[in-house]
Amino acid sequence: MSKVLMGPQTLIYPMPALLVGANVDDKPNFMVVAWSGIANGEPPMISVAIRHHRYTHRGIRQNLTFSVNVPSTDMVRETDYCGIISGAKANKVEGCQFKVFYGKLDNAPLIEQCPINLECKVMHILDLGSHSLIIGRIEETHISESCLTDGKPDVSKIKPLIYTTAPAHQYHAFGEVIAQAFSIGEELKARE
Amino acid sequence: MSKVLMGPQTLIYPMPALLVGANVDDKPNFMVVAWSGIANGEPPMISVAIRHHRYTHRGIRQNLTFSVNVPSTDMVRETDYCGIISGAKANKVEGCQFKVFYGKLDNAPLIEQCPINLECKVMHILDLGSHSLIIGRIEETHISESCLTDGKPDVSKIKPLIYTTAPAHQYHAFGEVIAQAFSIGEELKARE
Repeated sequence: MSKVLMGPQTLIYPMPALLVGANVDDKPNFMVVAWSGIANGEPPMISVAIRHHRYTHRGIRQNLTFSVNVPSTDMVRETDYCGIISGAKANKVEGCQFKVFYGKLDNAPLIEQCPINLECKVMHILDLGSHSLIIGRIEETHISESCLTDGKPDVSKIKPLIYTTAPAHQYHAFGEVIAQAFSIGEELKARE
Repeated sequence: MSKVLMGPQTLIYPMPALLVGANVDDKPNFMVVAWSGIANGEPPMISVAIRHHRYTHRGIRQNLTFSVNVPSTDMVRETDYCGIISGAKANKVEGCQFKVFYGKLDNAPLIEQCPINLECKVMHILDLGSHSLIIGRIEETHISESCLTDGKPDVSKIKPLIYTTAPAHQYHAFGEVIAQAFSIGEELKARE
């Protein structure tokens, strides 16, 4: 198999598109973040990479809290809009007609229309170069009742948006089930 | 829209399934990581969350390098196998018949069969609780020539595996294109 060198780059695999929220000067604002990650299991933590100058970044530093809202495929317009305009120039809550609510933390704004909402407290902010890596401890998880099956989150109802840069900056849906984890690999184990 | 509280948890949105590699006592080993993230743009960095006791973790600490290999859907058996067995107990390279090669860094093992391979140098290791968050600077990116379209990575050829815990620990394919990013949101902008 022939390999091609592409140089150092991050732009090559799919990540969920998230709406990260913060109160900036006491007003809720949201931005799109594709550069996120799961950072820890117990206690549950999440990371988001945000350029230093971003408007939402200011709010996160003001309150040391933020929210992560998972939009569904039917919110693709609103999601993209939050990525192409700055909260310094537009009221995105109005523009998107988001219904904002607050949970356990009283200054991490949550979007009711998003099937999943995480409330996070900032644990670490690492300056890594172009971006700050902000690591937050998840304090509470909200899920829309309509996205549960037998009381558990159901990804086929949540319908998350997956963002790729390669080749053409697109939002994708979640695809079909390929296999059961912690199971399909047993076939190779049997060969040992 | 009615919301349900789920408590603090990380298990609710899709992440790419990755094979993270390290030389442990000079021998290549690979583990599945779903808890990864993109950490920085310039220079490009990636994060992986790994439990402290894991065998691969030992190798990463020994060399302060690691690799990130993106498996395609046709490698689901091998991927899952690397997640259900420890390198302390089995030679996973043999079990999976991985063809291992090395690139710019001479001790970060890469899997030829994986369409994308990243070579990473450790920049930070944060102990966050159950997991270490390991942040690596991407030193080189390899891509299989067969996964390029017009010289650019093509996700429809890479066919990454997406892992979800909700509801049932499954590997999914990548779904259809929903919309063009930095474009569909213009419709809302026009409404302002």
